[in-house]
Amino acid sequence: MLIEKVKTLKTISSSLLSISLETRNNALIAIEENLLKNIPFILEENKKDLDDAKDISNSLYKRLILTQDKIKEIVDGIKSVRSLKDPLGNIQMERELDKGLVLTRFSVPIGVIGVIFESRPDALVQISSLFVKSGNCGILKGGKEALHTNRALFSIIKDSLNSVDITLGKSLELAESREDIKELLKLDDYIDLMIPRGGNSLVQYIKENTKIPVMGHTDGICHLFMDKDGDIEMGLKLTRDSKCQYPAVCNAIETLLVDKHIAKEFLPKVKTVLEKEGVELRGCSKTLEVININSATEEDWDTEYNDYILSIKVVENLDEAMQHINSHGSGHTDCIVTKNMDNWNRFLMNVDSASVYLNASTRFADGNRYGFGAEVGISTNKIHSRGPVGLEGLTIYKYKLVGNGDIVADYAEGKKKFTHKDIL
Amino acid sequence: MLIEKVKTLKTISSSLLSISLETRNNALIAIEENLLKNIPFILEENKKDLDDAKDISNSLYKRLILTQDKIKEIVDGIKSVRSLKDPLGNIQMERELDKGLVLTRFSVPIGVIGVIFESRPDALVQISSLFVKSGNCGILKGGKEALHTNRALFSIIKDSLNSVDITLGKSLELAESREDIKELLKLDDYIDLMIPRGGNSLVQYIKENTKIPVMGHTDGICHLFMDKDGDIEMGLKLTRDSKCQYPAVCNAIETLLVDKHIAKEFLPKVKTVLEKEGVELRGCSKTLEVININSATEEDWDTEYNDYILSIKVVENLDEAMQHINSHGSGHTDCIVTKNMDNWNRFLMNVDSASVYLNASTRFADGNRYGFGAEVGISTNKIHSRGPVGLEGLTIYKYKLVGNGDIVADYAEGKKKFTHKDIL
Repeated sequence: MLIEKVKTLKTISSSLLSISLETRNNALIAIEENLLKNIPFILEENKKDLDDAKDISNSLYKRLILTQDKIKEIVDGIKSVRSLKDPLGNIQMERELDKGLVLTRFSVPIGVIGVIFESRPDALVQISSLFVKSGNCGILKGGKEALHTNRALFSIIKDSLNSVDITLGKSLELAESREDIKELLKLDDYIDLMIPRGGNSLVQYIKENTKIPVMGHTDGICHLFMDKDGDIEMGLKLTRDSKCQYPAVCNAIETLLVDKHIAKEFLPKVKTVLEKEGVELRGCSKTLEVININSATEEDWDTEYNDYILSIKVVENLDEAMQHINSHGSGHTDCIVTKNMDNWNRFLMNVDSASVYLNASTRFADGNRYGFGAEVGISTNKIHSRGPVGLEGLTIYKYKLVGNGDIVADYAEGKKKFTHKDIL
Repeated sequence: MLIEKVKTLKTISSSLLSISLETRNNALIAIEENLLKNIPFILEENKKDLDDAKDISNSLYKRLILTQDKIKEIVDGIKSVRSLKDPLGNIQMERELDKGLVLTRFSVPIGVIGVIFESRPDALVQISSLFVKSGNCGILKGGKEALHTNRALFSIIKDSLNSVDITLGKSLELAESREDIKELLKLDDYIDLMIPRGGNSLVQYIKENTKIPVMGHTDGICHLFMDKDGDIEMGLKLTRDSKCQYPAVCNAIETLLVDKHIAKEFLPKVKTVLEKEGVELRGCSKTLEVININSATEEDWDTEYNDYILSIKVVENLDEAMQHINSHGSGHTDCIVTKNMDNWNRFLMNVDSASVYLNASTRFADGNRYGFGAEVGISTNKIHSRGPVGLEGLTIYKYKLVGNGDIVADYAEGKKKFTHKDIL
């Protein structure tokens, strides 16, 4: 029964903080070694999934394929997680409340986390290694298309953990069926956080059907705003990269906003550059006055194309651009192209997004590029973690207070006074 | 309409980050001055509530009463919030991704927060001042018993904010009816966080009826564990303070755990000390072998008495104590009394609570005692904020990336490499 598995995770989760960094890293080494040792077995199981894969899209099929090289890449990913500094036990605050009464706050694992991800089997390994490193218990649900591959990978991970530490061996569990998801979502007494990694509809479904806190993003509607004081060539280069470098992902832009003062000069060049890349352009009425492209509807401003399509809107000024971003964007990543530092500062302060950029491609919004080593996901939440989430997002803190028989009555009655002196 | 008010809050929330600390503090000064100027008006309105108060408990009635001194105390509370350092704009990370491409993370307000609190009118002022200081928009719903008082206080706050900054003047709204709560809970598109401050049933109701993240605690089941290596006199002193100094609050203990090796010596003294304070004791079978008190049922271990009642359990050892705390506790605050540093370390690492104490009263778990200046509430969540929550808990962060036309393609194609050099 899934609930029994999850209850066990909850029970053992409190003991993971005591597992040393060395043991956690040794467990990661064991996973690395055993994955490499078992490449033929993994590829065999992967082939079963590929043979079964009939009604899935081409891109899904591609992501399902494992090769020897791909497995080596996955192992490199574990190594990079292993090389990260310990996310646990970091002292965030140390304060003398009074003489001999010291309060310390330090990072600890969140506890039990449920992750639901789609067909990519490399996600299973990446998430497992992040959880081992951060001392979290995980219940992992992969896509059914990758059933055999996931089982093979998971059995190798589980055996590796067990060979190093019996508690770590119990810290990860696999869920397999669609019914399992429904059951998971009810277990708010045992699961501290749900992380759905997948398309809009998955994330929306999870958010609507559980009391467990959810970390993730439903949409990635990112913007690039070409300010009147922006460099034209830079604007073209950044628009092209932000849209075309990899359009299927959440940090690609969906809408280009252009200040009206620069529209006549900028838009024809945008048309030339983007049409060469095969991008379909959809413009507002003012855009259509300058270039001959399809017209955009109101719906376009709220649409994540994830494809070679870009909507374009001419705005009166910076204010209209910011207003548009805050009302139609998803709070993910938005960029201004400008040489005007006042405009940049206003954009930075007023655009309510996780990542706000000056003269840089929105495609940089990613855990690896931010130097987090590995990415748990990208969050558009406004609490806990925002933007690309690394290991730190899998931790919370605990307060430790060390006294010597100190009682509150002494302070309430005025016999003693707090000093509140920061040590750290 | 409430929804219109909340939509407006959402719209203006993005502009609050630009309001300087000086303006925010000036707004707090205006509130302080106007509250003091309007003491007769406030007391008059408060009297209406007191006259209307028929079917409420004595303790609720007491908390409803305002006096000139009480209002001065409330004003002192605002001053202490004003004296806190700016929670916004604090740089948490600064990293060169590559030459001339710098990523910075800094603290920003969460956005729009809904607070539901019970009858204490001082809560309205405290929350408002925390929100002004942290640049958050708030929709506040107080208890219906304090309707006139809350309206009076809120109108003074609103006028004060408007006199200093028109945007700040729009940042707080009052909700008044029970229907308003229902409506608020549906507005997950506009409200980023709900903070219920009240009893279990209120918090439970909120958690069960909204998709908005909720910060709060449902239970405060705290423990004190008397280790076999604990000092008897210290154990008695801490037990008395943790239970009796103010039993009606969440950080008072509900259960005393006693190592069996020390039970015969410790328990009779506990009985003497606590019965003198009027505490009803309920013990497990092993406790009853030592002292003559009422017997505890299984239910007692999961009950927050908030009263002069204490359940007592004799345990085999530290492990059983930790197991009991992790399965019956609420993750709030738990203390071990011991001179054995190994036991303390195991307790610290394995007890999964927000605050874990050595030889100190659980009653210290409080924002003011921790030196936070003011307390938003206490959280038993495992994400965002845990334990006593101060101003920091009302913030999240934003990433700023400053480039000079940098594109991802250069890195994907191997033309450039990230340096990932931490500046801060």
